[in-house]
Amino acid sequence: MSHVNGQDVRQKSESPRLYLEDFAVGQVYAAGPIPVSAEAVKAYARQFDPQPFHTDEELARSTFFQGLVASGWHTASLTMSLVVQAFPIAGGVIGGGVDELRWPKPLRPGDELRLEGGSSRCGPHAASRAKVSSGFERRRSTERERRCRS
Amino acid sequence: MSHVNGQDVRQKSESPRLYLEDFAVGQVYAAGPIPVSAEAVKAYARQFDPQPFHTDEELARSTFFQGLVASGWHTASLTMSLVVQAFPIAGGVIGGGVDELRWPKPLRPGDELRLEGGSSRCGPHAASRAKVSSGFERRRSTERERRCRS
Repeated sequence: MSHVNGQDVRQKSESPRLYLEDFAVGQVYAAGPIPVSAEAVKAYARQFDPQPFHTDEELARSTFFQGLVASGWHTASLTMSLVVQAFPIAGGVIGGGVDELRWPKPLRPGDELRLEGGSSRCGPHAASRAKVSSGFERRRSTERERRCRS
Repeated sequence: MSHVNGQDVRQKSESPRLYLEDFAVGQVYAAGPIPVSAEAVKAYARQFDPQPFHTDEELARSTFFQGLVASGWHTASLTMSLVVQAFPIAGGVIGGGVDELRWPKPLRPGDELRLEGGSSRCGPHAASRAKVSSGFERRRSTERERRCRS
């Protein structure tokens, strides 16, 4: 499910695209959940962050995390997949950077990742309906994960 | 090759591990290069950032980037793999976050990614030789890519 301002943008038209005019300060959005499996955690880590607490359940037990946890960059990558779902922006979601990135607690197998946030600033560089050009939107995102109790 | 303060730390011992005492403000380090292929760019993007400029050479030509480029999060993920190479820290490289992340120019197939940086602050939370606990080191990293001219 993708929401902008409480509406499921996917249902607006058959091929919805968002433009500058569709964004305003204070808008809220959400996407997800994505379930997180031990296999996915280890597959990402083998390629990009090969440390015991990301690659091996057994070795992870005696580390700082006391168990397998997703790489922070895996969490960030999964978050990007939610951003792409939530924002079908004409011309694409193109980011110049991130002002501040924090991992307050680790993502563990069995957790689900959700995206929630709101626009804090919209700028003139964003794609416009009249002219699709480079896009800029400053937003504040929070990833929330929920432990599956099954 | 992994360097800390100009020395190849891998050659210090058979299984080198770095501790708080091994870090100081002003140290420089480097790792890489990692070559970046179109296949790797597309494989990452299919999973985490499925947008035309990351997944399809042909479609990418008519986008903002005028060709295939790596997702910024793919660049960040590759950078993490270089950080793990450069810093065999006892207890692992565990980050609380990133103060500022910028993608000044896109990484393209054929480029190589290198890590260069220096410590700007070292804190008391870092792993110590006497007691391995949570690690903290503030560092400034720059990823540099070089176009292969072959």
